[in-house]
Amino acid sequence: MSGVHCGIKSDPAKEDLTLIVTDEPAVAAGVYTQNTMFAAPVALDRERTPNDRTRVVVANSGNANACTGSRGLRDAGAMAQHAARHCGVEPEQALVLSTGVIGEFLPLDKIEAGIADAAASLGRDGQHLTSAARGLMTTDTVKKLSARTLQLTGGPVQLTGMAKGAAMIGPRMATMLAVIFTDARLAVEDAQAWLARAVDESFNCLSIDGHMSTNDTVLFLASGSAGGPAVDGTDAEAVRAALTEVCIDLARAIADDGEGATHLITIDVLDAATREAAHGVAKTVAESPLVKTAIAGADPNWGRIVSAAGYAPWPASPERVQLEVNGHVLYKNGSPAAFDAEAVSASIRDHRETSLVLRLGEGEAHVRFWTTDLTAEYVRLNADYHT
Amino acid sequence: MSGVHCGIKSDPAKEDLTLIVTDEPAVAAGVYTQNTMFAAPVALDRERTPNDRTRVVVANSGNANACTGSRGLRDAGAMAQHAARHCGVEPEQALVLSTGVIGEFLPLDKIEAGIADAAASLGRDGQHLTSAARGLMTTDTVKKLSARTLQLTGGPVQLTGMAKGAAMIGPRMATMLAVIFTDARLAVEDAQAWLARAVDESFNCLSIDGHMSTNDTVLFLASGSAGGPAVDGTDAEAVRAALTEVCIDLARAIADDGEGATHLITIDVLDAATREAAHGVAKTVAESPLVKTAIAGADPNWGRIVSAAGYAPWPASPERVQLEVNGHVLYKNGSPAAFDAEAVSASIRDHRETSLVLRLGEGEAHVRFWTTDLTAEYVRLNADYHT
Repeated sequence: MSGVHCGIKSDPAKEDLTLIVTDEPAVAAGVYTQNTMFAAPVALDRERTPNDRTRVVVANSGNANACTGSRGLRDAGAMAQHAARHCGVEPEQALVLSTGVIGEFLPLDKIEAGIADAAASLGRDGQHLTSAARGLMTTDTVKKLSARTLQLTGGPVQLTGMAKGAAMIGPRMATMLAVIFTDARLAVEDAQAWLARAVDESFNCLSIDGHMSTNDTVLFLASGSAGGPAVDGTDAEAVRAALTEVCIDLARAIADDGEGATHLITIDVLDAATREAAHGVAKTVAESPLVKTAIAGADPNWGRIVSAAGYAPWPASPERVQLEVNGHVLYKNGSPAAFDAEAVSASIRDHRETSLVLRLGEGEAHVRFWTTDLTAEYVRLNADYHT
Repeated sequence: MSGVHCGIKSDPAKEDLTLIVTDEPAVAAGVYTQNTMFAAPVALDRERTPNDRTRVVVANSGNANACTGSRGLRDAGAMAQHAARHCGVEPEQALVLSTGVIGEFLPLDKIEAGIADAAASLGRDGQHLTSAARGLMTTDTVKKLSARTLQLTGGPVQLTGMAKGAAMIGPRMATMLAVIFTDARLAVEDAQAWLARAVDESFNCLSIDGHMSTNDTVLFLASGSAGGPAVDGTDAEAVRAALTEVCIDLARAIADDGEGATHLITIDVLDAATREAAHGVAKTVAESPLVKTAIAGADPNWGRIVSAAGYAPWPASPERVQLEVNGHVLYKNGSPAAFDAEAVSASIRDHRETSLVLRLGEGEAHVRFWTTDLTAEYVRLNADYHT
């Protein structure tokens, strides 16, 4: 991996181009935004995955190559081609990621020069991983990385993921940019199925502002270079579980770095009739500006939370709902519960993490969802960020 | 009508109780929130409308009587009963409205005293109308009134509406509190059908923060006291049109008074396959915090607008969409259009009203929708407003 500065971002200290090259042709799975205004790199990757021969992922930040029409598609293809040439592989063995401003054409000259630099500085240590993760960042204040080492039947394998994202986060079937790679040997169909399931329990349970991006992409690469046999049986379960854990780590890290956020909010919706109903309640609560500002103000304003559950796609029943905030019961069986407002307020104010638990009393399905509060700083960042 | 201060609001200069009494038993139609956590007054009014014998509407602000369980239902019934008694009518001839904090019980003693005061100070001039409209207000900074005089076959009739609302505005089938009354004589089924249609083109095309209230109620009273015959034929069309105009005036007034808003944004979605699809695109664009902050910052950031149209319930097709901001074409046929960014930015910055027109290129349906920008002041108001 490597991350370099090629000149898309104005600050020369900030990486804006990332190159990831696998040791062996890798199984590659992808999950993408459901936005119909999907970006050119999404169109290219969607066509190329899943496959069993990917060697290169090239990514740039600062320019999304979205809403750029046919020229954008040609530019994404050219970016893949440059990366493949500099790494000595076929053009079709490269995948492309872009993130940043919508509606501007890629500066291909800078990108090609950056690819040459990046190809000359590849490496496999922590510093290279850090640079590569930083090359994805836009308004992120911290890089997002997560890793696991697994002991499989055939020996140890590594699983490493990186992601970016701090706003325009409202995924329906995928989110933002993330790349997870492993040296385990996987079947193509396993890689794709496990990724889809992991995304469903992680990035799809994440919202900062409910705005679905044009560029959301999660890629999973499995090179097999650890040398073990194809993963199956109990090993399969171990890899699948680790993949989900890494995706959850990265999704939480995105919420925790939400633009202007002062709280990471975890919403557990329990005892729902279906997982879809639970997800709808969680997402509706997560995206209410009134809930988000209440948490920012450390206000145990349970009316805002309960009323949001009442207009979800599968709304909650008032006489059954129970709400807990940081372990305190605030609402039960259609009526307010007696609680110590000052204690609940302090529990919100004094911790970065807030827990909301909504028990619907309708079944056994549940979901865990992550979001942020809404602060004046989010507004300032997005009102002042000019195209 | 009258509006008095009964002590729910702390500021004695602010009316918090409104009484409206009709000259004759009136046809009463109602449209209510679709929130399952609907408030006690909504339960009471929903049961009592439509009907042809309503005499009284009593409303309080500062307390929503929502999420208050069976005691809340009893309190709403008691409030209706007090109002009916002081006005000399049957308890079932009274309707009730409440708005304010969720989850607190009504201070019935204050409300009963306020009803006595209000009944003693009823009147029909502008000052009484103003006090009545102010008695509905919570965080509203201005009262919302609209009126029309119509020349019908049987003589002139009046149509007058009042509304309140500045946040927790994200109606699905009704919104906030509004009362429209006329001295025309209407059939019950006409009043209900015309109100439902008017609401669909006004309050249902309004969102400030997307959060559906527990108390949304629109009431329409027709007393027939103008003395003319029952309205039908071309008169019916005139009343129906005037009712829709009054509802649109009030919906726009709510958006214009949105908490912290510096822009009233009108979104016209044109050339859609269905009205439902057009409404979905308009609402998705209207509720994106990124679109709202862009307008607050006078930033012609069309990528945020177009990408929001791409994740609506019936999303737009990129190759057909056209976007105009204040008359300037910014995006056309899947690609950015050349435009004078400084001129568009100035057109947003220098006017309180911003026009977004999205042409979907798919059919002939259209919708007009109203929303606000999102400012740090909205966040401040809602983070600092403590329960």
